[in-house]
Amino acid sequence: MKSFNQIIEEIKKLKTGLFEKDFLLTWDKTQDELKQTLLVAEALKYLRDNNISAKCFDSGLAISNFRDNSTRTRFSFASACNLLGLEVQDLDEGKSQIAHGETVRETANMISFLTDVIGIRDDMFLGAGHTYMCEFGEALDDGYKNGVLPARPGIVNLQCDIDHPTQAMADLLHLKNYFGSLENLKGKKIAMTWAYSPSYGKPLSVPQGIIGLMTRFGMEVELAYPEGYGLIPDVIDVAKKNASETGGKFKVVNSMDEAFKNADIVYPKSWAPFAVMGRRTELLQKNDKEGLKALEQECLANNAKYKNWECTEEKMKLTKDGKALYMHCLPADISGVSCKEGEVANTVFEKYRIETYKEAGFKPYIIASMILNNKYNDAASILEKLYNKKKERM
Amino acid sequence: MKSFNQIIEEIKKLKTGLFEKDFLLTWDKTQDELKQTLLVAEALKYLRDNNISAKCFDSGLAISNFRDNSTRTRFSFASACNLLGLEVQDLDEGKSQIAHGETVRETANMISFLTDVIGIRDDMFLGAGHTYMCEFGEALDDGYKNGVLPARPGIVNLQCDIDHPTQAMADLLHLKNYFGSLENLKGKKIAMTWAYSPSYGKPLSVPQGIIGLMTRFGMEVELAYPEGYGLIPDVIDVAKKNASETGGKFKVVNSMDEAFKNADIVYPKSWAPFAVMGRRTELLQKNDKEGLKALEQECLANNAKYKNWECTEEKMKLTKDGKALYMHCLPADISGVSCKEGEVANTVFEKYRIETYKEAGFKPYIIASMILNNKYNDAASILEKLYNKKKERM
Amino acid sequence: MKSFNQIIEEIKKLKTGLFEKDFLLTWDKTQDELKQTLLVAEALKYLRDNNISAKCFDSGLAISNFRDNSTRTRFSFASACNLLGLEVQDLDEGKSQIAHGETVRETANMISFLTDVIGIRDDMFLGAGHTYMCEFGEALDDGYKNGVLPARPGIVNLQCDIDHPTQAMADLLHLKNYFGSLENLKGKKIAMTWAYSPSYGKPLSVPQGIIGLMTRFGMEVELAYPEGYGLIPDVIDVAKKNASETGGKFKVVNSMDEAFKNADIVYPKSWAPFAVMGRRTELLQKNDKEGLKALEQECLANNAKYKNWECTEEKMKLTKDGKALYMHCLPADISGVSCKEGEVANTVFEKYRIETYKEAGFKPYIIASMILNNKYNDAASILEKLYNKKKERM
Repeated sequence: MKSFNQIIEEIKKLKTGLFEKDFLLTWDKTQDELKQTLLVAEALKYLRDNNISAKCFDSGLAISNFRDNSTRTRFSFASACNLLGLEVQDLDEGKSQIAHGETVRETANMISFLTDVIGIRDDMFLGAGHTYMCEFGEALDDGYKNGVLPARPGIVNLQCDIDHPTQAMADLLHLKNYFGSLENLKGKKIAMTWAYSPSYGKPLSVPQGIIGLMTRFGMEVELAYPEGYGLIPDVIDVAKKNASETGGKFKVVNSMDEAFKNADIVYPKSWAPFAVMGRRTELLQKNDKEGLKALEQECLANNAKYKNWECTEEKMKLTKDGKALYMHCLPADISGVSCKEGEVANTVFEKYRIETYKEAGFKPYIIASMILNNKYNDAASILEKLYNKKKERM
Repeated sequence: MKSFNQIIEEIKKLKTGLFEKDFLLTWDKTQDELKQTLLVAEALKYLRDNNISAKCFDSGLAISNFRDNSTRTRFSFASACNLLGLEVQDLDEGKSQIAHGETVRETANMISFLTDVIGIRDDMFLGAGHTYMCEFGEALDDGYKNGVLPARPGIVNLQCDIDHPTQAMADLLHLKNYFGSLENLKGKKIAMTWAYSPSYGKPLSVPQGIIGLMTRFGMEVELAYPEGYGLIPDVIDVAKKNASETGGKFKVVNSMDEAFKNADIVYPKSWAPFAVMGRRTELLQKNDKEGLKALEQECLANNAKYKNWECTEEKMKLTKDGKALYMHCLPADISGVSCKEGEVANTVFEKYRIETYKEAGFKPYIIASMILNNKYNDAASILEKLYNKKKERM
Repeated sequence: MKSFNQIIEEIKKLKTGLFEKDFLLTWDKTQDELKQTLLVAEALKYLRDNNISAKCFDSGLAISNFRDNSTRTRFSFASACNLLGLEVQDLDEGKSQIAHGETVRETANMISFLTDVIGIRDDMFLGAGHTYMCEFGEALDDGYKNGVLPARPGIVNLQCDIDHPTQAMADLLHLKNYFGSLENLKGKKIAMTWAYSPSYGKPLSVPQGIIGLMTRFGMEVELAYPEGYGLIPDVIDVAKKNASETGGKFKVVNSMDEAFKNADIVYPKSWAPFAVMGRRTELLQKNDKEGLKALEQECLANNAKYKNWECTEEKMKLTKDGKALYMHCLPADISGVSCKEGEVANTVFEKYRIETYKEAGFKPYIIASMILNNKYNDAASILEKLYNKKKERM
């Protein structure tokens, strides 16, 4: 394992501009910035694992703004903030007056007077989540520029309609650890494939996040889905461009078997077709319950045609030496466990269960890294100070 | 801008008895006590703005007891507590057994064993909110006196049926900053006027808080509302008495134009008539849904007669040099933005939008000041210690 | 009152294995372990009462997992965690994806990456609460063993279907204080008796916790209930065994009067019959609303036969010198106050009200003690360090 000093030395070599910039989409960040995000996360994990306090805030608020349900990300955010010394305050719209006509512009300022960071999840409506975060950020810029806010709180995207950067970056850190280094990922094949689920309406942000990020590191990314289950076209273009720029590959196929063939990593996960998400967004906005029910029936019937898109032992045999790493953002639809027929066979999941837990375990550190890099211009020296101080956490 | 030392010197000159006293109504406090509340708030803002830790609690709980919805005040309270080092715990009646017959007396003690401060919002029922806070306080007195509680937690009124002291004091601090000093407010005319809104049932505590407080500082307070939209008569008496004692003026008129004439400050805001709030309280207590619907219809119809009570560009021209400061506790009903026809024209609001945000920005510091003054007998020396220690917040 | 040093010396004499062990049932703990839990609670109370910081965590998360409503225990847990320096994060199933098929195994790990302690209340279903906590603990063991979790978070039972150890231990600490020492409890008679309530379905964990704990300290425990209102038979066996091993006594009678006779302490409290809780659990699991209504009617009718099981002034006269200590976990059903006819006469409750508040006031310290003992192998030296450091809390 790398020493703490090695991590710090690596950070010092990078040229990055993460300071005071929101973390909304991984493809807005440079290679060095992504690398720094991973390294700072590793340094924070090192501190915590060695019982050294990583508190770099004496006080300060972190706001979580969850516009959709969440357990994992909620706890990851809370853990990250507590690690750094920030206290989480939930902006729960059920408890607030937001529904009564407040504009984003006003709310953003009203909750930010003493706030350092705001984590937002907004993945329900296609075309809305990322837009909301941008508007929120502009409102904060406006408030800061006009002297309303003493500092500009940073925004961390905890999942939007386009990307899920804390998930994708945690996944990347898991791969870095599993394969030994980012270098080692070059040329590795990852199969990001649709999988059958008895539910519908799952967001597109995970597969989009994976193809948008893994194409940055020279990987061979193969996206597989049944015809009609495409992702947002713009993100497909991002993946293509990334691959061509970093010596990676990006390919779309309509067969799970083909994607699994010779893969080093498989990521089988259900999502709703892009077109369906668009129709669903319209119906949700109109509050058309009949329409939503009809759409759900139509989609479930369509899904049911692809029950063979399941990550089984047999399919795993198609992968490199039959030993590809199975990944999932969790919770997975496990056949015979959480549902009758689902994304993955129980035996496959069980074999990789601990690995998926470890994968999830990187998320708090990724979020803490995003916060630290946003609020401190020189992450390396902050981390060194904490390390040298060696204040025991407990 | 005043130096930190100047603020501290001013505090030292005052004779006050804020220590261990709840902050329920501004008119229960002396002039010096109100001044100290402002000054301590300014000192805390100075510390925060200069990245100096204002933590004067190593640990301790602050309880928020919101019996009505809130975003702003909830976040202001959370910010204030975090600034001082207290952790907020919500007393959410939905999550608790309070509905099952617990008495206030018991609840007050049960949540207070290790509690330093309790912030309460209770503005739904006329005649109930202030009473509830007093009962709560008596229960805490009883528990403290009898050795149940190691200390008497302080209560901060976060809005009741009578007053909204954290709002009014934040408004006053905004005026102090805007006009340069409390001295400069003498003789200034403030128009606290009713304004049209397409909703009904808005509490009376803001206008009552404003007329009860601004009459303390030699201001010329003019309260305007359409006939039938009066406030609690006792509070009108308070305002009259205040004005006569401090060389200010207090006048009630039934014309927005008249109130605006030559005003230095305008505060146009909707509220429900006192008599309606009384009837509404009765219906709410009986859970009479039909009655409530009928009352709402009656009131909305009545409101609709006064759509011309809108703060327009034209009306603003009536004010001193056409340049009165527009104030609002937010969120405002902005015509064409948050509603079709509302309290204020979009162009007027837009011109003063940033000022209203700054106004709101004082609230966390006012709340923190109320807490600090309640828990520390010598605020000036605590603030000096924090200043001299110069511990960086981040 | 004992000095701090005396408390520490007493702790040092004990041989205990509380470190890294969950606190689920008091009868899983040795005498020395129970004594240490009381002593550490007393030491923490001493520190707090003397304004000495008891923070032994620089940062860290404490998760509260309330699967049933609670005010007291929720605030006790929050107070305990804040006292030690941990931040509470609620696992609220309404806000999470838990309802969507996540297994306990996965959830336990997902929320625990940076977590030190988890407090769980699960007392709704007979046969389920304790089982859930054990499964949760096994999931944490699994995650820790497999390198998912950097440490094994401790579990504190905040009430299950079998025991309510934080309540029973707080009750015991109250008795220790009231009678001067644990020694003085030997031979004292405590009447744990059923009492009438106009509600049904109250959990069995309080009476079970009391008979399971008080029989450990040489007390004469008399359990009284109307025929048909028995507790879980296994717990009755535990109480019998305890009594025979510690020179105490345990007896079951069907008369409140008999139990009160010559009692030093009375604990009159309603609960649902064991058999009813079993039927109720089945109906709840089937979501059989009609069945639940019918069961409620049947039970209320049955309860109504025993309205004379009320703790009245007359019944109190039967106790030792008419002066037995009245105890209750609160809230009590007080006749003429919280209900028409209930568990206790208003005059009796009023006389002992302050004592019941003090009883409740020990709970935060008991919980903090359970956490400290779980996370630190040498509680005495941690407490000494805090004492010698004498950092002021405020």
